[in-house]
Amino acid sequence: MKTYSFHHPLRVRWAEVDRQGIVFNGHYLTYFDVGITEYWRAIGLPYPDGVADAGSDLYVVKTLINYHGSAEYDDVLDIGVRVARIGTSSMTFEVGISLDNELLIEGEVVYVNADPETRLSKPVPDKLRHAIEHFESKAAAHA
Amino acid sequence: MKTYSFHHPLRVRWAEVDRQGIVFNGHYLTYFDVGITEYWRAIGLPYPDGVADAGSDLYVVKTLINYHGSAEYDDVLDIGVRVARIGTSSMTFEVGISLDNELLIEGEVVYVNADPETRLSKPVPDKLRHAIEHFESKAAAHA
Amino acid sequence: MKTYSFHHPLRVRWAEVDRQGIVFNGHYLTYFDVGITEYWRAIGLPYPDGVADAGSDLYVVKTLINYHGSAEYDDVLDIGVRVARIGTSSMTFEVGISLDNELLIEGEVVYVNADPETRLSKPVPDKLRHAIEHFESKAAAHA
Amino acid sequence: MKTYSFHHPLRVRWAEVDRQGIVFNGHYLTYFDVGITEYWRAIGLPYPDGVADAGSDLYVVKTLINYHGSAEYDDVLDIGVRVARIGTSSMTFEVGISLDNELLIEGEVVYVNADPETRLSKPVPDKLRHAIEHFESKAAAHA
Repeated sequence: MKTYSFHHPLRVRWAEVDRQGIVFNGHYLTYFDVGITEYWRAIGLPYPDGVADAGSDLYVVKTLINYHGSAEYDDVLDIGVRVARIGTSSMTFEVGISLDNELLIEGEVVYVNADPETRLSKPVPDKLRHAIEHFESKAAAHA
Repeated sequence: MKTYSFHHPLRVRWAEVDRQGIVFNGHYLTYFDVGITEYWRAIGLPYPDGVADAGSDLYVVKTLINYHGSAEYDDVLDIGVRVARIGTSSMTFEVGISLDNELLIEGEVVYVNADPETRLSKPVPDKLRHAIEHFESKAAAHA
Repeated sequence: MKTYSFHHPLRVRWAEVDRQGIVFNGHYLTYFDVGITEYWRAIGLPYPDGVADAGSDLYVVKTLINYHGSAEYDDVLDIGVRVARIGTSSMTFEVGISLDNELLIEGEVVYVNADPETRLSKPVPDKLRHAIEHFESKAAAHA
Repeated sequence: MKTYSFHHPLRVRWAEVDRQGIVFNGHYLTYFDVGITEYWRAIGLPYPDGVADAGSDLYVVKTLINYHGSAEYDDVLDIGVRVARIGTSSMTFEVGISLDNELLIEGEVVYVNADPETRLSKPVPDKLRHAIEHFESKAAAHA
């Protein structure tokens, strides 16, 4: 099982649960987004201003979710987040959602750093790269 | 029963239905918004560009919903819309949502016309007022 | 300004903010629902099981929102909740959403207690009524 | 470029667009779900009753999205759907979302057929398999 460098709790809302009594499959991407937002805050670069100040403008280019189980109404979930890879212009977040230490949902979100005008990709700024690497290595040392 | 000057069909999505098997109460405001969007298109002032060109910038100041029944998954609803009142700087939309001619939901959305910078209210532009009045009186003549 | 007997914090998510940079008007009903859910938990009757055990099955019959201001992305809002009235078969929640002690949103949600089979209204069970009255009077004493 | 055996139009709603002026990444899974719902209807097995009558109970086990572009408010999108693979107990839907013949979004949704009680996978019923194969081969003949 993967370990995540950052964790954030989230309680499932009534409006997020469908007729089968489980969270609608697409809402997990909202949960991923909440977890990643809190990750940026935790490393000192709150989204979007901190990220923009570091010279970055991020666009989602890929999301992937594997559903091992289902979250239900009122569950208090743990959202685990880590950055698994930083490429030249992209970065890959891995996210895992657990309930009572049982992994329900596992996935990834890939962002590309791009110019907001041209939408052409450009290198991830050093400030962002270093902040992430520093946070991830500190977490690895404590694991 | 009220008559509406404009009608738009909408099919209930799986993600909009809750554990009780009915549409979550807040989603009806999204349905209202869809109906009002299509109303603007129908009168020749598509939102937001047509409305902005007419000199208006609209902000919601009040919403009200009375729930007489519940929509369910896959229902094809009729969204009825009409403008009930245009004041100096505000306008009131009345919306009714029906299934097979049974009124399930009835409500209103009040907008105020405001300056986008200061958020201070200002008079509804004549172009907007006339387009609405023309549409509503034509509908009344056909009712 | 009203005082509320219960308060719950909520951070605005990216997915809840629209193109104008403000929370979409319908999402406040989700926030109301989150606040009311936590209210039930606070009085010892978590929704829906605690409420059902007390003999109640609640349906929303009316919602009302007055928008005085707009919440924005990442705002940490205070959701204030109180029960303003319990009738024979209905109860009225009043909800206020504030940011830094400025009231942005004010509204109400009216529920009717009904038989889940027939959907006919029936009296609010004493257990529910007493739990709410006890909580509200305790809050009033501390206000 | 892939061809899809089924197409369904969908207009982007105001509430689905974020502060960047583009559809929030998670909402595409709602769009996928709408497209797949209409696919089931098109092959004569409307979800969930037609699918249940055919002996199937489907659970999402994987979703994947590649984002090539972004949909914006009021865009009328084309949702293309096809079943790319039917395994013993699973089936893979491929979905493509286009605007004016430009492919913006491409993805897949994998379902497993499972017993609603035990959640153990079981073979896709023949009725379902045949309905899909018939529809896909007819579409291929017309491509």
